Amino acid sequence: MAETGTQVERVLDRLLPKPERGEPALAEAMRYAALGGGKRLRPFLVVSSSRLFSVGESCALRVAAAVEMIHCYSLVHDDLPAMDNDDLRRGKPTTHKAYDEATAILVGDALLTQAFEVLADVETHADPKVRIALVTALARASGAAGMVGGQALDMAAEVTPLTDIGSITRLQRLKTGALFEFSCEAGAILGKVEDSRRGALQAYAHDMGLAFQIADDLLDVRGRAEEIGKTPGKDQAAGKATFVSILGLDRAEAQARLLAEQACRHLDVFGGRADDLRAVAHFVVDRRA
Amino acid sequence: MAETGTQVERVLDRLLPKPERGEPALAEAMRYAALGGGKRLRPFLVVSSSRLFSVGESCALRVAAAVEMIHCYSLVHDDLPAMDNDDLRRGKPTTHKAYDEATAILVGDALLTQAFEVLADVETHADPKVRIALVTALARASGAAGMVGGQALDMAAEVTPLTDIGSITRLQRLKTGALFEFSCEAGAILGKVEDSRRGALQAYAHDMGLAFQIADDLLDVRGRAEEIGKTPGKDQAAGKATFVSILGLDRAEAQARLLAEQACRHLDVFGGRADDLRAVAHFVVDRRA
Repeated sequence: MAETGTQVERVLDRLLPKPERGEPALAEAMRYAALGGGKRLRPFLVVSSSRLFSVGESCALRVAAAVEMIHCYSLVHDDLPAMDNDDLRRGKPTTHKAYDEATAILVGDALLTQAFEVLADVETHADPKVRIALVTALARASGAAGMVGGQALDMAAEVTPLTDIGSITRLQRLKTGALFEFSCEAGAILGKVEDSRRGALQAYAHDMGLAFQIADDLLDVRGRAEEIGKTPGKDQAAGKATFVSILGLDRAEAQARLLAEQACRHLDVFGGRADDLRAVAHFVVDRRA
Repeated sequence: MAETGTQVERVLDRLLPKPERGEPALAEAMRYAALGGGKRLRPFLVVSSSRLFSVGESCALRVAAAVEMIHCYSLVHDDLPAMDNDDLRRGKPTTHKAYDEATAILVGDALLTQAFEVLADVETHADPKVRIALVTALARASGAAGMVGGQALDMAAEVTPLTDIGSITRLQRLKTGALFEFSCEAGAILGKVEDSRRGALQAYAHDMGLAFQIADDLLDVRGRAEEIGKTPGKDQAAGKATFVSILGLDRAEAQARLLAEQACRHLDVFGGRADDLRAVAHFVVDRRA
């Protein structure tokens, strides 16, 4: 994962606008928001799923960079005062703190737009049908029926708290699950593989994504800022219902482990080639940050 | 133009998420931001340039809807308190006034994302190469090296006012010109025509876009809110240098007319088929809103 992180950092560095060209402050802030931080979990999923189908690494890394641009834009916008109002992200001041709110809004817009430019570029894949499939899948995963829709539900839940596991699961499937699902499917799209194997990756992504989110809720309760790189205790302070507030710590932890194991079983069809993805499922529940 | 406006309204209505499906508040706010208002100038450019090359109307209208989604998202984000802080748009309360800031940020993100989903869809054009070319061109026109870059320059100019026509021209070419250029090129992309005719449309868009912007600056000085549907006198209040503040009213108006005529001359190669586009160039300098 660290190796993929380094590789995707290099690709992002090459793709992102340079301050000496274009609008310097915007380019600098885009680089601040997207470079030098984060676990790069979504890129790792793209690269790992691509390896299953022997997809060329440079293709996979460009898709990985595009997903990370989407993920970073969503963090920049979600951290804004009007949204989650956070000062700390990945152990650094959030983009609107390091620059200003207007710049943070524009940085998000620019990263979001560039993600689609990268996917559409011929360097991402020679076959235009593959590039179109990537654009479509990423737009669906990140738009009103995916990540942005989930964030809207999350804002609404601050006013009318959710009360059952079904609603929280639905919210998280949109807010974080859809982009995990895209990341895992990306390898299958790049490899032009049949629907059954794509379905196995979707099922894996679904269970792994929920395990990730439950673990995130646990970290929000248990974590310390210097470890998790963001402000802990936020959900509780905001009065938000989470997996932990409804299930309690112990049941939530057991549920996360169960989901991680279930996620791994969906990978049986790929044999030992999917060991990286299995390791991810266990990593997301064991991580301390 | 009114006819195209009605048609693109119908396409947008069909494409935008329905409140009864998905997150109701987000879907409703997306529709508020994108439906029922605006001159639909960019859609008209897409439809008019498409007619030059006998492109099917349903293709052109989908691309027109995508451009309008981008334009509407940019208005929603630009109106935010951290940006231009405006309460009135198209004669209605701005999205963050009618809803709230968080919703307005998410509405912009969702509209931006959906624009690319629409372009990538097979209904937009059967040939995946055409769809990819549209995604690429729209991403370039609207991202850090286009519209968003122009908006960043505009924010920077509030702190360090621009002092010469060259800088203002460059800013406006990015902020509004790039999307006009895409709208005019869209017909050529859909019609798969050769570069020379695409170049004529680019040149037209360049001059027409500048004429539009100078006229906009004139309206900001002369207009009344009930006519222009937004707050007048904003640029002056913000201490922004504009074409009018540097050239003065009379020279600015003469320059706008000159650019409109120049824009029309680039269309000679298309003969009478480009009369709609010629009419647009005159409309943008004669309009009262």
